[in-house]
Order: sequence, then structure tokens, then C-alpha cells
Amino acid sequence: MDLTVYLAGQIHDDWREDVKKKAKERNLPISFVGPQTNHDRSDNVGESILGEQPGKVYKDDAASDINNFRTQVLLQKSDAVIALFGEKYKQWNTAMDASAAMAMNKPTIIVRPESLIHPLKELSNKANVTVETVDQALEVLSYIYE
Amino acid sequence: MDLTVYLAGQIHDDWREDVKKKAKERNLPISFVGPQTNHDRSDNVGESILGEQPGKVYKDDAASDINNFRTQVLLQKSDAVIALFGEKYKQWNTAMDASAAMAMNKPTIIVRPESLIHPLKELSNKANVTVETVDQALEVLSYIYE
Amino acid sequence: MDLTVYLAGQIHDDWREDVKKKAKERNLPISFVGPQTNHDRSDNVGESILGEQPGKVYKDDAASDINNFRTQVLLQKSDAVIALFGEKYKQWNTAMDASAAMAMNKPTIIVRPESLIHPLKELSNKANVTVETVDQALEVLSYIYE
Amino acid sequence: MDLTVYLAGQIHDDWREDVKKKAKERNLPISFVGPQTNHDRSDNVGESILGEQPGKVYKDDAASDINNFRTQVLLQKSDAVIALFGEKYKQWNTAMDASAAMAMNKPTIIVRPESLIHPLKELSNKANVTVETVDQALEVLSYIYE
Amino acid sequence: MDLTVYLAGQIHDDWREDVKKKAKERNLPISFVGPQTNHDRSDNVGESILGEQPGKVYKDDAASDINNFRTQVLLQKSDAVIALFGEKYKQWNTAMDASAAMAMNKPTIIVRPESLIHPLKELSNKANVTVETVDQALEVLSYIYE
Amino acid sequence: MDLTVYLAGQIHDDWREDVKKKAKERNLPISFVGPQTNHDRSDNVGESILGEQPGKVYKDDAASDINNFRTQVLLQKSDAVIALFGEKYKQWNTAMDASAAMAMNKPTIIVRPESLIHPLKELSNKANVTVETVDQALEVLSYIYE
Amino acid sequence: MDLTVYLAGQIHDDWREDVKKKAKERNLPISFVGPQTNHDRSDNVGESILGEQPGKVYKDDAASDINNFRTQVLLQKSDAVIALFGEKYKQWNTAMDASAAMAMNKPTIIVRPESLIHPLKELSNKANVTVETVDQALEVLSYIYE
Amino acid sequence: MDLTVYLAGQIHDDWREDVKKKAKERNLPISFVGPQTNHDRSDNVGESILGEQPGKVYKDDAASDINNFRTQVLLQKSDAVIALFGEKYKQWNTAMDASAAMAMNKPTIIVRPESLIHPLKELSNKANVTVETVDQALEVLSYIYE
Repeated sequence: MDLTVYLAGQIHDDWREDVKKKAKERNLPISFVGPQTNHDRSDNVGESILGEQPGKVYKDDAASDINNFRTQVLLQKSDAVIALFGEKYKQWNTAMDASAAMAMNKPTIIVRPESLIHPLKELSNKANVTVETVDQALEVLSYIYE
Repeated sequence: MDLTVYLAGQIHDDWREDVKKKAKERNLPISFVGPQTNHDRSDNVGESILGEQPGKVYKDDAASDINNFRTQVLLQKSDAVIALFGEKYKQWNTAMDASAAMAMNKPTIIVRPESLIHPLKELSNKANVTVETVDQALEVLSYIYE
Repeated sequence: MDLTVYLAGQIHDDWREDVKKKAKERNLPISFVGPQTNHDRSDNVGESILGEQPGKVYKDDAASDINNFRTQVLLQKSDAVIALFGEKYKQWNTAMDASAAMAMNKPTIIVRPESLIHPLKELSNKANVTVETVDQALEVLSYIYE
Repeated sequence: MDLTVYLAGQIHDDWREDVKKKAKERNLPISFVGPQTNHDRSDNVGESILGEQPGKVYKDDAASDINNFRTQVLLQKSDAVIALFGEKYKQWNTAMDASAAMAMNKPTIIVRPESLIHPLKELSNKANVTVETVDQALEVLSYIYE
Repeated sequence: MDLTVYLAGQIHDDWREDVKKKAKERNLPISFVGPQTNHDRSDNVGESILGEQPGKVYKDDAASDINNFRTQVLLQKSDAVIALFGEKYKQWNTAMDASAAMAMNKPTIIVRPESLIHPLKELSNKANVTVETVDQALEVLSYIYE
Repeated sequence: MDLTVYLAGQIHDDWREDVKKKAKERNLPISFVGPQTNHDRSDNVGESILGEQPGKVYKDDAASDINNFRTQVLLQKSDAVIALFGEKYKQWNTAMDASAAMAMNKPTIIVRPESLIHPLKELSNKANVTVETVDQALEVLSYIYE
Repeated sequence: MDLTVYLAGQIHDDWREDVKKKAKERNLPISFVGPQTNHDRSDNVGESILGEQPGKVYKDDAASDINNFRTQVLLQKSDAVIALFGEKYKQWNTAMDASAAMAMNKPTIIVRPESLIHPLKELSNKANVTVETVDQALEVLSYIYE
Repeated sequence: MDLTVYLAGQIHDDWREDVKKKAKERNLPISFVGPQTNHDRSDNVGESILGEQPGKVYKDDAASDINNFRTQVLLQKSDAVIALFGEKYKQWNTAMDASAAMAMNKPTIIVRPESLIHPLKELSNKANVTVETVDQALEVLSYIYE
């Protein structure tokens, strides 16, 4: 059974490549999709496509139009979601995507370090599974195919 | 990831062919669908299939039966919608299709000229992205695959 | 049975007061809601609440934020919709509201003059009933209570 | 028209009382609901009801069971949502509640300080309206009744 | 607990009055709604409101516009449905209403004479309960309140 | 675009083979599904699989269990529905399937002879298109691909 | 805020009266509904209303028709569910009602003795909260109103 | 037409292999999915992936996180469900999966021995078909393709 999994979460390191490599090693028939991971491209895509905006709020809103369009298309095509929170940054997009996914009945795995247990407790509680490492998330995905 | 995109909007020029050609140049794995673009065929299809009607209102209603059947089939199969408004004509069908798509949670791009900013402001505000040219709409679609 | 009916459509005359008066004369237990009908207030509400914006596009978008918030709250509380199209103006908001209502399975009556039969034919065809006068719309509402 | 509005967001000051007082001054027929605002009660409710847990993770999860039960009951009864972000704390619950509300088609207002424009840009973009003060949020609610 | 029950089915006798009288005798807090039961009014309502039509098909379609508007409003407000089939007439409207109700997850009771067991077998099978008399249907409604 | 179309309706002649043959002649990429068309098999399938039942009512109910299972699987997989009514028989299953399909937002074509215009008027009115012949229904399907 | 809570679960003792009494003591504005708790009435209601059946299977099926009708009406009217499992009996109805409630997004509390932890672990995991006593369930309900 | 069928139910014998073999013999184009059938693996998967837990309740809850994730992914991908109850064990998971499937409108077949007729009567009544043997369930699946 082929599955598509949306990889929500921080875009400041290459954890998505790690997921894809490990899924390939396990021969899992899973396609992974996710947000734009080039941070500059993500921040500037509004002005790149729609032209210069009259200030930062408007530049941000233009970029968000296009980032949200992308996320909505890909999230609706996905069968499950992995949402990874790192220790830095506010990562409200990760919380937003995970929460939207759960409201859409997408089975969801949260990956977060021990330090974030308390602030993420309600979100973790709503998710299907919460783990601390990408390897554990992969084990959960593999379990579908056992 | 293969996607299907419904091209709502005016049928008085060949903007859909332009979209398809440009998507092909960018190698986007997207199938495009849309309404009947032969205006006469669209207006006469009711009488062509159902037989002569007793006046213009009834001829129009018969054509709409079949046009709405087509749109409903194709819109439900689509992953996203581009709705283009031109400067001429009332184009209520475009507004109807875009609004129905958004109520069905289809991610939606509106293309409209600067002159229509004010009358389309609420519809634009509900869409994910509003652009002024087909090229910009294509850039938004391409962004899904970056 | 108490009902709430959303009155979508043009805000350039006082047709809504006419509807309410006639419903009262017929003793229909119906509450009517609808958009902001003070055109200036509707156009300026964004800047009034959110502060001055850097140009007309942004002013329009700010107003639409708030107008769409209002419409969404009231439309979701409604049991049925009357959408009136007049001969002037583009009235894409009316088409947008009627189409959203129908996609949300709200029973819908369209009121439009004879001159708009052709451009509104697909929207009319999707609505439950299309009439030419407010009096006819009231007769349809009354019929629920016979 | 009576409405119920869920007040998502930080529980570290008394902004909810401010909202209620101002709504009362404006005679708005709105009932406000929201999360447990006694922070200690919220953190300890799991152990208070379910008994001592074997460590902090389990204490947090037990509390979240009950906090999420409360939120789900009250959010489903609400017609609209105001989500307030302050400058301190991670406030992922606020993002979670706002995102869930929007996925459930609840009309949503975000209140956030200027400093949070960038990290909240995608969430703001999905909300109906984003404002900076509680007073502005009240003006938006009042606008429904004009 | 107050309930609203839609009484679908034939309009050629006064079985609905019988239901209402018996529910009152049992002091059930149930409001009953249903289609227009004046057959002539139902058949002619299209022309009465919309004006003369160019033939029987169009007269029937105009009447159906308004009958379906009424049914959609009332069925959506109902908590349960009783659908009665008699021995005469084709009664496709009854089958249509019962099937739509079940697709909308409305709990449904079918009342039909023994002679209709075979032709109604698939519809009966999808309904919650099938009985032969109005008295039995009332007993089922009463059972909710025991 | 490949489509699946459910052919609801009478099982007393071979109109489904006619539809399939004509669709093939037009090279339409459509798969057709439908109910069991062997009438005896359909009536007896309950006892064939579940064993002898204690009377006709129970035999009919057992058959309906299995016929409804089949219909539910196939209807949910379909993109559109054609429902054909003939002049004989009560055909409540056809009305049931067409109505369920429309409540599930499946675009629907009704085929019925002129003699059934009046008794089917409300169902026709809810369908997208009503025609009199299989050839006309095929023309409507073909129109999707023009 | 008035709420309705469905009390799923065993009908072999008077735990529901205990819940109602304790809710009253706490002045909670909650209406409680639930299944028929007279076991004999529940088992015999099919034959009581529909007449004698040709054996136990058919008697059971007739009773279930009416019990499921009742449950569907009341569960759809409820804002939350408490499902109590006791140590005796198979109680598949309790699991069925709790699972249906959760699939319908009804916030759910499970009450079960320590001895049932293992066999109920997946159901507990899907519920919002799992407790061991009725008093704890009441505390969770009270928490909504703090 | 390719279908996917979820095989809910007991994991204490190899009935699923029996289903697959018999479906293959009949050349049915059906893929079967289901829960983890290695009982020890299912019970221990939480600790295997998430690490040792502080007691049996927590071990069970951790395992359930992952088992429920798997079930949700696979059930949502399925077109129909077979739920088998055996004579031993409480099998609340089977009832939970069958009830969730039915609430999600998945056509469902229950397989249960004669001895379980009474305790399963309400669940059986909600399912499409109830049979006593795997062979009968296969006959029902085959019937879709006749």
C-alpha cells in the first residue's frame, strides 16, 4: 500500500532528507511531501511572484498566501503527518499544520525533544504518537507494513 | 505528485491553452480541466441534447443543467482551482465556481486585472492567492514542486 | 418553527427592509440577517478598525477581512438564503455568497430581473428557486409554513 | 442573534475579563467561553482527578486529557474564535486551538503584538482577521450587529 | 428533550393528523413537520408564484423548485424521519425523502403495508425500523422517552 | 480523465449493456458499475449465502443486506450516477439510489419516459439533468470530454 | 452553558442515577440521556412493537432496530459522552457507542475498573479521558464550568 | 474495480490468511489490510519504540498509540470492512473498529458464531451483513463482482 506522508515542522536543518533516506533503507513505499525548506525562498516568495509590497507586514502576508496554498494542496493529498519541533524558534507553523491535520483526521506523529514536553503537552495528547527522534517516527511508519 | 487543476473563468479567449503550454514548458505533472470553452456549444447544449425548448429561459436552463453536471464532475476530481476574471462580461459563473471550490476546501488562485480589485475584494480575500497574470499563477503552481 | 434567513445581495437600495416588513405583515417567525448595508461603512471598515493601509488594494483587503468574518458567522447560523441581483454593479459578492451557501447545503432563492436571465443561468440552475421579485421570494418563504 | 465566542490564548493575564467587560459595555449578546485560566489548576488537573502519576511526562499527559476534553466541548459549541498571542511563552496551545477552529470552519480573529508578525504570518493569513488589541477584536465582533 | 420529526410520505389522506393527535395523547414533546399536504396547492404552487409556464413539464418543474426548497429547509431542521408508503401511487417522493434523510444520518422509521414488503425491501433494510402502522411508529418514538 | 459511473435503475432489460456499448463506440474512458442485474440472483442472494430464512419478509431482508452492501461499495467509488426509470414496476430502489447519490453530492442524470414526468418531478428537479433516452445520457457524459 | 451528555454503558446497575444525582449536587446545567435501562424492556421491545418473531435471532434483530433508533437520535443530540464498562458482561454495545461517538467527534470519557485496563487499551487511548469511578467522571464534567 | 478491505477482529488465529487465500482462489482484485496480528509485537510495540514505561497502564497506552495510528491509516484507505468475532476474549477492539468503520460509512460485514448473536445484536443490526463463516463473507465480497 503506497502512502503519502506530510513532513511538517522546522525548516532549519535537513531532517526531512534524513527521513527520506531512512525510509528508503527500509524499502517503505512512502512518498514524502512538505513545505518549502529554503527559508529565504519561503520568506521572499510573495514578493518574488506578486511584486514588491509596501512593508514587512504585507511582504509576509504575500508569502503566506503562497506557502498556505502549497501546504493545503499537499496536506490534503497526504495519508499521515509527521510534525517535528526543534528547540529553537517559535514554530507556530508546525503547531498549525499538526492541528489542522488532526482536525482533518490525518493520523499524526509528533517528534519533539524532551525539553518541549510541557509546552507541547496538549498537542502531543491529541496526536496519535509522540516520539523524540526521527528514527522512532520511522519505526512507527514501518509498523504499518509489518 | 500528479495534480488536477480546474481552470474556472471566462471562455472568450484562449487563456487555458496558454496555461497548459506554460505548464508543459515547466514540466509540471498537472492535468488541467475546465468548462466547455466553445461559447455557442455551451449556450446551445441544452437544446442540442434535450430538444427545442419553449423560449430563452428554458433553453438557458436546459444548457445549465448540462454545464453544471460537467462542472460538478470535474471540480470534484480537482486538487486546486485557478479562476480567471477578465474585464468584460459579468462572469458570475467564475465567481460561482471559485466560491463553490473554496467552500469545498479546494485551494484556489484568482487571476484578475487591476481594474477589478475593488469589486472582487471579498472573493480575493477568501482565495489563497490573487495574481494579475497567468504567468504568476503558473509560478504559484510551480512552487508546489520546488 | 423559527428560521433564520440570510439576505445576500446588493446593498444599494433598501430591499432588505422591504423583505422584513413583508415578512412581518405575514407573521412569519423568521429572523433576517445579512451583510453591512452602509456602503461607506463596508468599504472603510478595514481602515476604521485596523488603521490606515498603504494603498487601495490593502484598504480593500482589510475591509474584506472583516466583511467576510461577518458573513461567515451569519451565513453559518442561517437556515436558508435569499440572494438578490439588481441590474447595476458587478455583484460578485452576491454570486459568491449564493454559491457558498449552496455548497454548504443551505436552501437558496435567487431574485433577479429578467435582463439577467442569461448571465445568471448556471447559478439559477443550482439554486432551489429563482424569482423576479421580493414578493415572490416571500411567497416561497410563506409556503414553508402553510 | 446570540453568539458564543471561544477565547483561545494565553492564560497569564486577565485579557478575557477585559473582553467580557467591553462586550458588556457594548451590549453585545455574546457568551464567552475558554480554557481553564488558573495556570496551576490547569497543570495539576490530571493528578487532581486521576491520582498521582509516575513522573512529569505522565502528569502532563493526564492534565492534557482533561484540558483537551474541555476545549473540545466548548470549541464545538462556539460560533467564532478569538485567539490572543502574547510576547512571552511558546503558546502552542493557542496556535493549536486557532488552527483546529479554522479547520472546523469557525470564523477566527487573531490578536497579536507587532513583534509577532513574522512568526505568526501563516496562521494570520489563514485567520479571517488579525488585530493588535482586544479593543479592535471587540470592534470586529460589534460589526456583526451593526 | 424536544425533538422535531419530519413526516415524509403520501399526501392523499390525513395520516399526519393522526400522528400528531396520538403524539399529543402520549404527551411527547415532539414537533412534526412535513410536505405540503394540499395536493392541488402542491401541484400548482409553481405557477401560483412564478406565473404561467409553457406546458406541463415546466409547470411541474416550477412546482418542484418550491416543494424541494420547503422539504430541504424542514428536513435539515429535523432530528428523525417517519416515511409512510401507502398502497396506491408511485410515491417516489417518499422514497426520495427517506433515502436523502438516511444519507444525512437522520434516524428513520418506515411505515408500509404488508403488500409493499418486497418492492421496498432495500429501503426498509437501510432504515432503522420498519413498521406497518402509525401506532407502531408512535410506540417507537415514545420509546425514546422511556 | 477516467471516470466511474453507477447505473442505477431497473434490472428488467439490458439497458446497461446498451450504455456500455455506446460509451465504447464513443471511446469514453468510463467504467460502469451497478446493481446485480440477474433478478432471481438478486432476490435469492440472501438465502443463498445466509441459508434458508423463516419466511418471505426475512428472505427479502437477507437479500437486501447483501444488495445494499454491494450498492454502498460501488456507489461510493463512483464519480457520477445515471438512474433509469422504466414504465413498469415501482422502482423504489432507483429512487433510493438516485436520492442517496444526490445527498452524497454525486452528479446525477435521470432517464425516464414522458409518462413518468409528473410522479418523478421532485426527483428530476434535484438531479442535474433529466433525459428520456439512454442516447441522451451518453451525450451528456460525452460532453464532459469535449 | 447547557450541555447534554449521553451515558453509554452497562444497564445492569443504577450508575446513571448516581451520575444524575451527583451532577445535581454540583449544580451542573447538564441533561443526561442514554439507552433503555430496563433490560427486559430493551430485549423485548422488538416483539412488543413489531409482533412475535420467528426465533431468537429475529427477536434480537427487531429489538436492535428500535434500540439503535433510540441511540442514534439521542447520541446526535449530545455534546459529550460518558461510557462505563463494568467487570461483567461483554458490553459490546458500550464499545460500539463509545467508538461511534468518537468517530462523530463527540468528546468522550471512559469509566472502567482497573481489571479492564488491558482489553480496553485501544479504546481508552482514543477517548479523551479514562477514569475509574463515576465521581472522577463528574469531576471532569465539572471542570468545564470552572 | 480494485478494492481494499480492512480485516478487523481477533488476532489469535490465522483467519486473515484464510480470507486472503480464498479471495485469491476466486480471483478477486481485493487487497486486504488489518491490525498487527503478532500478539506479543502488538502488546510490546509501545515499549519497543518509545522505551520502557513506568508500569503496565503506561506500557499499554504506549502500545495503543501506535496500534491506533496503524489502524487509522489503514481503515481510512479501505473501501469496506470485515469484522470477525470469536468465542474467546473480550474483543472490544473489534467492536471499536467495526463501529468506527460504520460511522465513517464504510460498508461492513460482521462474522460471528451463533453463540454471540445476543451480545452482538445491536452491532450486527448496524452492519450491512452478518454471517457466521469466513466463506460466507467471501461470497458477499464476490457478489460485488458478479
